[in-house]
Amino acid sequence: MEESQAHGNKLHEVLVLGSPWVFPVLHSQFSNRFHFLKPFLSSLSLLQFLSSYAQSIQALLIPGGCLHLTSAVLDCLPALKLVVTTSTGVDHLDLPELRRRQIAIAYVPDLYSEDVADLAVGLLIDVLRRVSAGDRFLRLGLRPTKGDFPPLGLKLSGKRVGIVGLGQIGSKVAKRLEGFDCKISYNSRTKKPLVPYSYYSNVHELASNCDGLVICCGLTEETRHMINREVMVALGKDGVIINVGRGAIIDEKAMVECLIKGEIGGVGLDVFENEPEIPEELFNLDNVVLSPHVAVITHETSVELSKLVVDNLEAFFSNKPLVTPLPNN
Amino acid sequence: MEESQAHGNKLHEVLVLGSPWVFPVLHSQFSNRFHFLKPFLSSLSLLQFLSSYAQSIQALLIPGGCLHLTSAVLDCLPALKLVVTTSTGVDHLDLPELRRRQIAIAYVPDLYSEDVADLAVGLLIDVLRRVSAGDRFLRLGLRPTKGDFPPLGLKLSGKRVGIVGLGQIGSKVAKRLEGFDCKISYNSRTKKPLVPYSYYSNVHELASNCDGLVICCGLTEETRHMINREVMVALGKDGVIINVGRGAIIDEKAMVECLIKGEIGGVGLDVFENEPEIPEELFNLDNVVLSPHVAVITHETSVELSKLVVDNLEAFFSNKPLVTPLPNN
Repeated sequence: MEESQAHGNKLHEVLVLGSPWVFPVLHSQFSNRFHFLKPFLSSLSLLQFLSSYAQSIQALLIPGGCLHLTSAVLDCLPALKLVVTTSTGVDHLDLPELRRRQIAIAYVPDLYSEDVADLAVGLLIDVLRRVSAGDRFLRLGLRPTKGDFPPLGLKLSGKRVGIVGLGQIGSKVAKRLEGFDCKISYNSRTKKPLVPYSYYSNVHELASNCDGLVICCGLTEETRHMINREVMVALGKDGVIINVGRGAIIDEKAMVECLIKGEIGGVGLDVFENEPEIPEELFNLDNVVLSPHVAVITHETSVELSKLVVDNLEAFFSNKPLVTPLPNN
Repeated sequence: MEESQAHGNKLHEVLVLGSPWVFPVLHSQFSNRFHFLKPFLSSLSLLQFLSSYAQSIQALLIPGGCLHLTSAVLDCLPALKLVVTTSTGVDHLDLPELRRRQIAIAYVPDLYSEDVADLAVGLLIDVLRRVSAGDRFLRLGLRPTKGDFPPLGLKLSGKRVGIVGLGQIGSKVAKRLEGFDCKISYNSRTKKPLVPYSYYSNVHELASNCDGLVICCGLTEETRHMINREVMVALGKDGVIINVGRGAIIDEKAMVECLIKGEIGGVGLDVFENEPEIPEELFNLDNVVLSPHVAVITHETSVELSKLVVDNLEAFFSNKPLVTPLPNN
């Protein structure tokens, strides 16, 4: 039986943009309550799909970071009244434009910071200790006993790690790295009271005093390309950078150059400047770990998230207040 | 100029078996002080090589775990007086046989436990969060925006983790995982005083009460195949196993079966039962992370280790006491 027939065609339609990670869980649990439109599975272009099928769509679901909700997209959705983003950051949304069109926004407040911090530490260990590179070495059939040496890693314990952005995520990264006897320092807009770590008011000075940087801040005009060539050179040739914030916080072109010239020691990236594009030069490097923007997503969290999405959608379709509206919007 | 000529053919010869990780560092720093024989780079079989070139060899260097120093090998080395192993564990050495032949042993006391603990946590995050699998996904050209979903990971924070063997390494793994709010328990021969973690006197009971096991113990007759099918089933279908101890502590055949049937959630292995052999079935699984027995080796540690090896070799060739003799041998 078709899902839309099960309830006498009364399922509310929800447009799903950009194939959010949570979608498989959401679909398997809630396709009896909503009819999901999936342009990412269509052979049509997005705008063609929207013009053909989404004229009456009132609500859409969009992941963070990857796909931008542009005016061109919004113009194809004349009935849109609600955007539900599955992210905490909203830099992919044009807030003034959505406000002008009187479109409400539901977002996800802190649900992810533990998962993000866990992955940040995982990427840091992976880059330093060449975990993914070692796995690739073995899966390629290479063996030390055949005279091949796997890539030699760097030590984590005791290293000086700088946290860029000591918010919910950054604080959890710091707490985790204390267990590795790392010496933690941080950069943020203002010095935090009651925090035992050394504060550096600028990121260049932080980099000069660290063996690794973990980027946990949001993307703003101030943080865009904050990690530039000078900062990377200050970090040095054994220094590593982990990015679980937003891609454009790093000057990606400069980063690729520094990696190729051996001016930094390695990077672990869950985000990229022009997602889904990834600079091709990175694919050949063993001191690079690439992660498909999954810092926030685990099975456990996707179950919680999918409930939160559905609660917001049901509130909207019942004319009740959103469960997690974006504040000050 | 040939290295052996530089000192008027007076360099002491050292046989290097099994291509230890430390060898590139050792060779680059100390080839002016020793002449290293490298059967692993020869096209001859090991025994042929030894019979042809190693009759007068007094000292050999061997890594841990991989290659066993058998009587057949020892029979080809009539002049052997010293074995230097680069490992802390010595299960690859036949101690009674070496004693009988009056061959001294130098080993490496605790130099590695931080590195091993770091990698154990790295493998745990990697397996749970599918870091290597995500990296592979992207390097294969797959992209979420094309409708491909990367493998969905499991959460680490707050998980119940059982440490098998709470020695130098296990304690450091536990300390690191406390930063992730993991609930730690452990199994060891005896309950440790002054340890805040729950003790289980048998590993089956530990597995029944945990979401993951991290194997940090040595290989003995008691621990061989201690992680058997029953233990794995008790751990359960989302349970993960990390092994930085020795391969044969896990019943590898049973493990492969459990992985294929989905009876456990994943494994991260730095060691294998029959190194360098790795069961082929593992190469196709995204919930498996393979590491080429590098838990003990980082650049920083290999510099320290290489100094320790050389100090032992120089002590031996100068008829001085070894710097780190194996105790009670």
